[in-house]
Amino acid sequence: MTKIRKFNLNEQEMPTQWYNIQADMPNKIQPLLHPGTKQPIQPGDLEALFPRALIDQEMSADRNIDIPEEVQELYKIYRPTPVHRAHNLERILDTPAKIYFKNESVSPPGSHKPNTAIPQAYYNYKQGIKKITTETGAGQWGSALSFATSFFGIQCKVFMVKVSYEQKPYRKSMMQLWNGSVIASPSMETNAGRDILAEDPDSPGSLGIAISEAIEVAATHEDTMYSLGSVLNHVMLHQTIIGLEAEKQMEMAGDFPDLVIGPFGGGSNFGGLSFPFLRYNLTRGNKTRCIAVEAASCPKLTKGKFEYDFGDSAGMTPLIPMYTLGHKFIPPSIHAGGLRYHGAGAIVSQLLQDGLIEARAVAQHESFSAAVTFARAEGLIPAPETAHAIAQVIREARIAREEGIAKTILFNFSGHGLLDMAAYDEHFRDVQSKEAAMHLSGSLLTNLVTPRV
Amino acid sequence: MTKIRKFNLNEQEMPTQWYNIQADMPNKIQPLLHPGTKQPIQPGDLEALFPRALIDQEMSADRNIDIPEEVQELYKIYRPTPVHRAHNLERILDTPAKIYFKNESVSPPGSHKPNTAIPQAYYNYKQGIKKITTETGAGQWGSALSFATSFFGIQCKVFMVKVSYEQKPYRKSMMQLWNGSVIASPSMETNAGRDILAEDPDSPGSLGIAISEAIEVAATHEDTMYSLGSVLNHVMLHQTIIGLEAEKQMEMAGDFPDLVIGPFGGGSNFGGLSFPFLRYNLTRGNKTRCIAVEAASCPKLTKGKFEYDFGDSAGMTPLIPMYTLGHKFIPPSIHAGGLRYHGAGAIVSQLLQDGLIEARAVAQHESFSAAVTFARAEGLIPAPETAHAIAQVIREARIAREEGIAKTILFNFSGHGLLDMAAYDEHFRDVQSKEAAMHLSGSLLTNLVTPRV
Repeated sequence: MTKIRKFNLNEQEMPTQWYNIQADMPNKIQPLLHPGTKQPIQPGDLEALFPRALIDQEMSADRNIDIPEEVQELYKIYRPTPVHRAHNLERILDTPAKIYFKNESVSPPGSHKPNTAIPQAYYNYKQGIKKITTETGAGQWGSALSFATSFFGIQCKVFMVKVSYEQKPYRKSMMQLWNGSVIASPSMETNAGRDILAEDPDSPGSLGIAISEAIEVAATHEDTMYSLGSVLNHVMLHQTIIGLEAEKQMEMAGDFPDLVIGPFGGGSNFGGLSFPFLRYNLTRGNKTRCIAVEAASCPKLTKGKFEYDFGDSAGMTPLIPMYTLGHKFIPPSIHAGGLRYHGAGAIVSQLLQDGLIEARAVAQHESFSAAVTFARAEGLIPAPETAHAIAQVIREARIAREEGIAKTILFNFSGHGLLDMAAYDEHFRDVQSKEAAMHLSGSLLTNLVTPRV
Repeated sequence: MTKIRKFNLNEQEMPTQWYNIQADMPNKIQPLLHPGTKQPIQPGDLEALFPRALIDQEMSADRNIDIPEEVQELYKIYRPTPVHRAHNLERILDTPAKIYFKNESVSPPGSHKPNTAIPQAYYNYKQGIKKITTETGAGQWGSALSFATSFFGIQCKVFMVKVSYEQKPYRKSMMQLWNGSVIASPSMETNAGRDILAEDPDSPGSLGIAISEAIEVAATHEDTMYSLGSVLNHVMLHQTIIGLEAEKQMEMAGDFPDLVIGPFGGGSNFGGLSFPFLRYNLTRGNKTRCIAVEAASCPKLTKGKFEYDFGDSAGMTPLIPMYTLGHKFIPPSIHAGGLRYHGAGAIVSQLLQDGLIEARAVAQHESFSAAVTFARAEGLIPAPETAHAIAQVIREARIAREEGIAKTILFNFSGHGLLDMAAYDEHFRDVQSKEAAMHLSGSLLTNLVTPRV
């Protein structure tokens, strides 16, 4: 009989503080540098872009930071989120590994992104801000921020990477439904956008370009702030609610992860789940392996350099100490739009540099194959970003089988793929044409039709 | 401060029996009649289409029927589902009414449909069946059955109403991802489909036609059974898990509904939530009003006749005592594909005939306006079917305001609209062109940008 194991917290068990890993890092991150003076940035330098409460969090060394009650309330729309045991996947992979996943896809925008969108909207609201600009890749972040700002009467303007704007029209509709306004980037609305279009009118865009555009609008309009969905320290901080909940749920399961795995775009998806576990490596000598999984076509962690670089394409952000492919890098148009970013946040970069976390890269085809296997095993359809983590989980489960070791694996099921079905269609077409080319008689599309009960 | 109230059950509190309202109905339903002999149907007549366990449930007079353990396990993938209090919606409507909704959108296919798809797949599996055919309108049922059959290694063939097949390509992709095969109906695969196409090659299809096609395939293939997503008694039975859970959750909330409201296609969405509450009207003299909300363009409850009619277009099903628009009725191509059915199930029809439930009709424009209001208030995006119930909730909340009465309203948030964003886009285009025609200066699209905290 199929065993379904889901570990639910009640609302009273939801964490009331976020965890700031900066307090426990053996080597602190190097300071951000002012793009003009190249001197360490001062809190005041950021006030044109962010409300003071977020700047304080960005620079805080406090280990635990209170989650405002208003934010806790809005979290309850979808939190606490469940942890599932993936028994069917284990059986299909014939692995002794125990596989768990934290299901962040249950939020209304369908991903983990509201975990930081809600507090960011809240702190802006508290400071009287009425307009926020941001960028989005696949649209997960833009829809999450539109969702969150709509609760506070804040207008949200989203620069959406053009290739995703065209590939994912329904993410755009979601943003509009939540009162967000959406512009394909590069656009003619900003100097940054116009410069890119002058050079390449067909530019597919990139997160770096979209960030430049959003920052430019915020910096040149007094009533407008800017919001970022990953990379920055305060974003990592807010996302730790994922791992803090998961820690309690793994305890309910009577288990503790040997491996924690998350997709990697700018770091908050991975960090949100892993930092609360990594904490015990740093403070108690635990040896949990934390693995960040990036897209092979955008390999800043596995092939980039650790150096100061801009967070955006036009060079308007502070210089960030990061693993980077260079801020002018324009990644190929893969479906996992959320992983198409040239750099990694300062905290995850320092942790990687210090050998405290690991990184792996996964190519698009492997990620979709893994997603299909997972969807047929567990019934949940992964977002293309999430699929990268699943591919690594499957690799690790196979290693566990070869070694005969019952490792415990926990990964971040960071979002669902219901808005990405066109990407699955394309994957199936690829598989079919490859099968046809190889003169296979059976179809990979149906080879999993076997009872799993 | 925005108050979020969600009422969660733990898995141990999930009901272990379904409720069969047939046991408590003052007037029992009239028997189904054999389409050939016009005599009351015998269990054996149905054995070419359904496994014996489902036929038994179809005809059972038992009040409570055990949910098999295997089904309970698979339910736990997404059940128990939450009940939410819609505080923000109440505030926006400035109503004294208390509005609650049961959130069935949290299942992987995104609707309440797996509640019956899972037991139907299970009972077929227990009888050794390897193939099932079915029909689907908007695709909610077809995706739910593909999801459920995939756990049991059963092949699922779905005849999808052509207009939805074209309007909703991503529902089709979901079915394929879960190993379902999908055919646009009317098709050339069956006599029923060929007959329709001979008359009208551009037929948009209807649920009645798709049912004929699916039944024909099942009836003419020994190894193939048929499965229906609404209308029949055993489907109503399985869906009562919704109301049975909601009853416990309303108790947690310290409340009891004066009104229970559900969207109405064939009856299982509405009946699933309302029957467990209606039970106390029948057995204890309670006076909860139960309101079925149909699409104004497919008004069998409010404008149909109560008489024996076929469940399908070609006249292959037993004759069912139902409110019907006639089995040849082809409804307009509204977005709420799940409501495009000519008839109502026998149980709901008898209850309506006896004045024990009420019916209302809602037009498409009103339903989408209600859905937008709801999405901006509560953050959840409703399916077009669900939007019909929400429109009625808003009507009732306004009446409550006029009367100054703090009624308690509970409705079935039966599915999310993430696969229906194209329908929202179209609604927005309609609104904008109407605004332009009326020379309005402001936009309805942004008039809800006011703080709600």
